[in-house]
Amino acid sequence: MIVELLVIGNEILIGKTQDTNSNYMAKRITKYGHKIRRITAVGDELEEISNAMREAINRKPDLIIVCGGLGPTFDDMTLQGIAQALNTELELNQHAYDSIKRRYEAAYERGILKLDGMTKEREKMAYLPKGSTPLPNERGTAPGVKIKEGDTLIFCLPGVPMEMKSMFKIVIIPILKEKKGKFMEKSFFFTGIGESQIAPYVTEVEEKYPKLWIKTHPRLGEYGAEIEVSITAFNVENAEELADKVIDELKEIVIHLDGKIKES
Amino acid sequence: MIVELLVIGNEILIGKTQDTNSNYMAKRITKYGHKIRRITAVGDELEEISNAMREAINRKPDLIIVCGGLGPTFDDMTLQGIAQALNTELELNQHAYDSIKRRYEAAYERGILKLDGMTKEREKMAYLPKGSTPLPNERGTAPGVKIKEGDTLIFCLPGVPMEMKSMFKIVIIPILKEKKGKFMEKSFFFTGIGESQIAPYVTEVEEKYPKLWIKTHPRLGEYGAEIEVSITAFNVENAEELADKVIDELKEIVIHLDGKIKES
Repeated sequence: MIVELLVIGNEILIGKTQDTNSNYMAKRITKYGHKIRRITAVGDELEEISNAMREAINRKPDLIIVCGGLGPTFDDMTLQGIAQALNTELELNQHAYDSIKRRYEAAYERGILKLDGMTKEREKMAYLPKGSTPLPNERGTAPGVKIKEGDTLIFCLPGVPMEMKSMFKIVIIPILKEKKGKFMEKSFFFTGIGESQIAPYVTEVEEKYPKLWIKTHPRLGEYGAEIEVSITAFNVENAEELADKVIDELKEIVIHLDGKIKES
Repeated sequence: MIVELLVIGNEILIGKTQDTNSNYMAKRITKYGHKIRRITAVGDELEEISNAMREAINRKPDLIIVCGGLGPTFDDMTLQGIAQALNTELELNQHAYDSIKRRYEAAYERGILKLDGMTKEREKMAYLPKGSTPLPNERGTAPGVKIKEGDTLIFCLPGVPMEMKSMFKIVIIPILKEKKGKFMEKSFFFTGIGESQIAPYVTEVEEKYPKLWIKTHPRLGEYGAEIEVSITAFNVENAEELADKVIDELKEIVIHLDGKIKES
């Protein structure tokens, strides 16, 4: 699957919060052989959300995961933005309403929350874009949302990392598994020669193994650097075997150039 | 200024690397009163870079900062992507060429690098989109790039954090300072009541102070939660004073609702 992530929240844009959610998701999406094409972060503004969403839909990925902005406050406007992008409206989803109500009742009865019953703000979380399916939130109150638009599946997850992770495990992982592809990554480190010196050899080896992606990452700048060579492949049959060959060939070149392989 | 960030690199999309560069930049851009509207991350693919860049330009921000993909390898294709987005070509920039050459000569003489002289891969870094100005890289070899497109200033910085930070300080900070705006953030934490219970009061206070942005962040899920109330403003004259009033009013409400203010 081709996947896009859309992260919503002013706190990301002002640098108050380091967005770790997309890295968490990216690791797992990739592990199951799916390819993230783009990660976009926008603020809590209706037009921004709606534009970013419309653009993502127009690129026709298989899966869009939206993260953040599902809460009870008026500036949690992810679902409104998505509805606008889909040219539809929000409507009260009875299933979502009931589950939110139950969560608050239980929390009140257990003495965790002091306010009983549904309020406008609690109800807000039950207004989903027409045609949506609510997703249970095991760790919070705002339900997630699933929508199908053409061939694209859209999921909205909460932005609170604990809630996001729980819903990701329950809802997203099974889909990643079901349509599972194959991702491979292997890497090694060397020191003593620069990225530009190994570059022509990497190009040569890459031409020999066109299905693999070989990338050098200078880890401390080029000078006195440690360089990582990372070999990745999506959905290549004997990727591991090919990667091992690439690694052997490149290690030999590093040694020949008087560089040093870092033993892991 | 309205700012967009464009982060380039497969390592971000596959989750191998947590993108900390954009958070580093976002903090500083915001501190000087400028507003980041969008952060986009794409992989090392020409069309992806070129599309994302063209879209960013069409949104007409004052400043676009691109990060990553300036190195000597064939898959460092940021500048090619930008040239394509600007309907122009790469051409050898003599100033960039000379500075790259000097860096490698010095590194060779000091015994840091084993390969002397310019190679195709080293030359590559001197090919900049027509009309660009190269920016010195104090911590590496790939020069940064400055381009003006209409009213938008575009800067390309290296992706290696040490190199990015050095160039950000030398090149970007002075511009942020020159066009300095005013950003204010204040916050406080409370426990004992849920986000949805405080929400209507936040809305009321927000309506009273329409220039401020008031956002609640549940820090541990709504149940038994600690909630942060964050008040931010861009370019509001007496923002601190207004924020203090907002904080006083909201703290009073929290206490009235039987919640507890967390002393900082």
